[in-house]
Amino acid sequence: MLGLMQDRPLSLTHVFHRAERLFGHKRIVTGQAGGERETTIADWAVRVRRLATVFDTLGLSADARVGTFCWNTDRHLELYLAAPCTGRVLHTLNIRLFPEQLVYIANHAEDEIVFVDRSLLPLLWPLVDQMTTVRTVVVIDDGADAAIPDDPRIRDYEELLAAAEPFAGTFHIDDENSAAAMCYTSGTTGNPKGVVYSHRSAVLHSLVTLTADAFGLAERDIVLPVVPMFHANAWGLPYGALLAGAELVFPGPNMTPAAIAEQLARHRVTVTGGVPTIWMGMRPLLAQHDLSALRAILCGGSAVPRALSEAYREAIGIPMLHAWGMTETSPIASISSGRSHQDAWTEDERADARARQGQPAPLVDLRIADPESGQELPWDDEATGELQAAGPWIAREYYRGEGGGTQFTEDGWLRTGDVAAVDRWGYVRLVDRTKDLVKSGGEWISSVDLENEIMAHPAVEEAAVIAIPHEKWTERPLACVVVKEGRSLTGEELIEFLTPRVAKWWLPDAVEFIDEVPKTSVGKFSKRTLREKFGDYTLPS
Amino acid sequence: MLGLMQDRPLSLTHVFHRAERLFGHKRIVTGQAGGERETTIADWAVRVRRLATVFDTLGLSADARVGTFCWNTDRHLELYLAAPCTGRVLHTLNIRLFPEQLVYIANHAEDEIVFVDRSLLPLLWPLVDQMTTVRTVVVIDDGADAAIPDDPRIRDYEELLAAAEPFAGTFHIDDENSAAAMCYTSGTTGNPKGVVYSHRSAVLHSLVTLTADAFGLAERDIVLPVVPMFHANAWGLPYGALLAGAELVFPGPNMTPAAIAEQLARHRVTVTGGVPTIWMGMRPLLAQHDLSALRAILCGGSAVPRALSEAYREAIGIPMLHAWGMTETSPIASISSGRSHQDAWTEDERADARARQGQPAPLVDLRIADPESGQELPWDDEATGELQAAGPWIAREYYRGEGGGTQFTEDGWLRTGDVAAVDRWGYVRLVDRTKDLVKSGGEWISSVDLENEIMAHPAVEEAAVIAIPHEKWTERPLACVVVKEGRSLTGEELIEFLTPRVAKWWLPDAVEFIDEVPKTSVGKFSKRTLREKFGDYTLPS
Repeated sequence: MLGLMQDRPLSLTHVFHRAERLFGHKRIVTGQAGGERETTIADWAVRVRRLATVFDTLGLSADARVGTFCWNTDRHLELYLAAPCTGRVLHTLNIRLFPEQLVYIANHAEDEIVFVDRSLLPLLWPLVDQMTTVRTVVVIDDGADAAIPDDPRIRDYEELLAAAEPFAGTFHIDDENSAAAMCYTSGTTGNPKGVVYSHRSAVLHSLVTLTADAFGLAERDIVLPVVPMFHANAWGLPYGALLAGAELVFPGPNMTPAAIAEQLARHRVTVTGGVPTIWMGMRPLLAQHDLSALRAILCGGSAVPRALSEAYREAIGIPMLHAWGMTETSPIASISSGRSHQDAWTEDERADARARQGQPAPLVDLRIADPESGQELPWDDEATGELQAAGPWIAREYYRGEGGGTQFTEDGWLRTGDVAAVDRWGYVRLVDRTKDLVKSGGEWISSVDLENEIMAHPAVEEAAVIAIPHEKWTERPLACVVVKEGRSLTGEELIEFLTPRVAKWWLPDAVEFIDEVPKTSVGKFSKRTLREKFGDYTLPS
Repeated sequence: MLGLMQDRPLSLTHVFHRAERLFGHKRIVTGQAGGERETTIADWAVRVRRLATVFDTLGLSADARVGTFCWNTDRHLELYLAAPCTGRVLHTLNIRLFPEQLVYIANHAEDEIVFVDRSLLPLLWPLVDQMTTVRTVVVIDDGADAAIPDDPRIRDYEELLAAAEPFAGTFHIDDENSAAAMCYTSGTTGNPKGVVYSHRSAVLHSLVTLTADAFGLAERDIVLPVVPMFHANAWGLPYGALLAGAELVFPGPNMTPAAIAEQLARHRVTVTGGVPTIWMGMRPLLAQHDLSALRAILCGGSAVPRALSEAYREAIGIPMLHAWGMTETSPIASISSGRSHQDAWTEDERADARARQGQPAPLVDLRIADPESGQELPWDDEATGELQAAGPWIAREYYRGEGGGTQFTEDGWLRTGDVAAVDRWGYVRLVDRTKDLVKSGGEWISSVDLENEIMAHPAVEEAAVIAIPHEKWTERPLACVVVKEGRSLTGEELIEFLTPRVAKWWLPDAVEFIDEVPKTSVGKFSKRTLREKFGDYTLPS
């Protein structure tokens, strides 16, 4: 027997029309060279409608992939809605990828057009000839003085918009499973792989960002996404904010901690989100700004250093709100917000809990499995296994079926490549990436756990642990450590510090001091780079 | 081009398994004769699993309609999950309906079984012979001493559960559009009509109850649904609370304001919800209880008297949170929570806004239309028209296609039968039911607006306005007024009070003092009863 409810597709067209109709008076602020510009959702919506017409005028296919190569701006948000609302597919290109990866991705997705911020044109333009399906490059003038080549493929965003009538009707998508957006993983091995989001997944994911125990986005929030819109939908903040009717503040091209701290204070931002690196950079600036309006600092992309979170709690009263996910999970899969069973805990225990990756979001199922047998493992916080995810906004395969053989289970769950333990309340604790574990004498050493202990030393700025081949033990840990400016530290001092804190066989065999931990395009520790650097390293015997 | 997200149906099985897995330690409390009983979600979940086996043992069809005739209890919550999670359809029977309506509904839905609280058995049993498809009546012993007839159709709930092994696997529903539950409208005209909810609609509706600007249900909430579980899913509170992991407190059979006020205080309830009548009854008790844990008092079912809401705000610091909907809308369609544009308003203006029906919930679309031409009307707070609703948890037709010709538009929207104006922020203001308007001299008088003005008089307990036929003006208003105990009021005094408050032609032609306003089975003013009572009323000339 079937239900008799209306057959209304879950579609981003609803997010657009709802924002336009209910929240036209709300502001959108964007940082730009020499200041900021401000618009309203009402005016922004007219521009989205113009852009819809532009797509037709330029002859884009019905399901054209629309590339963007942009900072976090109101213009980028225009593209975020205009592409999916007209049936096209928003394809956010990660500006921090290597040139050959960018070319690969644009060709793989068959982008017909790329919208690019003028300040980023020098990065993109040299590649356009190799992007075989790109017929048009639309430059969004962000006040940068980058030269604009004299080429018939290049068009000006504002000129196109000015010449286009706003689409006058109601946007409509028939099939909620239609593609709305795509994003390539910044995979550390092999070619990037395309994740294709549907209207359904985008709407459900947005809705969950509004739930109280997730981000709780509300109409009276003022949201500043530091996490780039070219990476995993900026964690769902742009669509979520529009659905909630929140105001949006975008940093624009200036992504320095100083500029962001100023925006947070000036606009009394209530919710912001970004990778740990940005919050580390902002930490020395906290005392200079009034950040009392902030109610949530979302932090993800890599494990949140407990010390960083605690430093924020001490300085401005709120710790980081750690969320976990990946491009393949839209990305929100779990959130480490507080739960009532922690009320009786000490502040210290609660800080430990906050450093975990948290409980699965509503509609998401997580499990841990033995990587060899596939057997599901218990949630006792002891057993560690590969974290696997299922849910309506989790990928079931990659674009064109690539790389799928190894990354999905037979029953259709995503293999995240993360190793985790889960406690009895369903709180995930990532132990490591499968491939970053140090396999020592038949046991595993978690490089992440070890890094956290090292980073607890007051003289350590950051640290990464990698495995070095070892004749007897298979692998042994090497600690790569960045010392804080003005501080000093020896390897012996560090080992002495660690001795009471970890099992003896976890103690690194060697400590190397480096200038900084290399990062990937999205700000994660690039252990691959470190492994290359220390490829022929010889451990002391 | 299609998205490549996992094809995971939206299903109440997720709500069950999530609660069981993440929130097993949370409490469920139920009022019963002589006290309360307490269980945990973990123990409750085992009983749901036993119940699933019972359904099979009793030979219920794969999509059997499972009738319930119960108070708000943990047992009823077992049925709320066991029926849909096993593919059956939960059919909540409204205990306050007339016997002939109950028989009609059970036969129309073809209920195979009815679960009944022992205290309610005397109401149900005399009708069972006429319920032609009901083969089994399962009595849930709630401590009442109602006699249990010696009849082979009667089974004992606890005996059945004790004899059944808990279902050991994972519940699964293939098609999210499958029926999960059904509820008949308590229609004031014609036969009751069946609304059939799907798994998809139930999950989406539950998710929205978790969003910050709706009810914001969170893990640390303690939720007491006063609104009956036999009526419109208790506004989604039971499923929402389970999805959020909130604790639940159920009143059980004792629905008196005194008993509920005690539970609210004893369990430090944070969210409760019910019709205005219950809050009116509790108002004199507020000073005797510590209700400081309450953060939201949901109020709906009929318009929230502004004075009542203000009385609560003055007494305990929070006004009513008015939500609007109907059986056909699952029921949450709009919520009158505060918005930032009201921050600059006076407390008085905000109280007016709170008395409105609020903004459409996420995923819901509302519009007002000219009842004759169907033309959509502007949102200027002046134009009034029939309120129409669309969304994934709004009915598209009634069970067996009945009554559908008039209640849905050609483009598939629900005609709510309410007349409303909408302001520029999308806040709905119900003016009246289409059929309750007083049509005077070619203009409409809103009986609801007039009632609100009358109820603002300090001596008035409650009041209803009905139309009386009039030779010259077609219809004229008659005010039916209940005077507060210990107070006195004359018709002349009331008219004098109203004169500066409403247009002259709105002033009632007569005032009748009555003992109480008759109510429908769900606590709404029954104007039909009043119209019958005053059927041959003669207005003074």
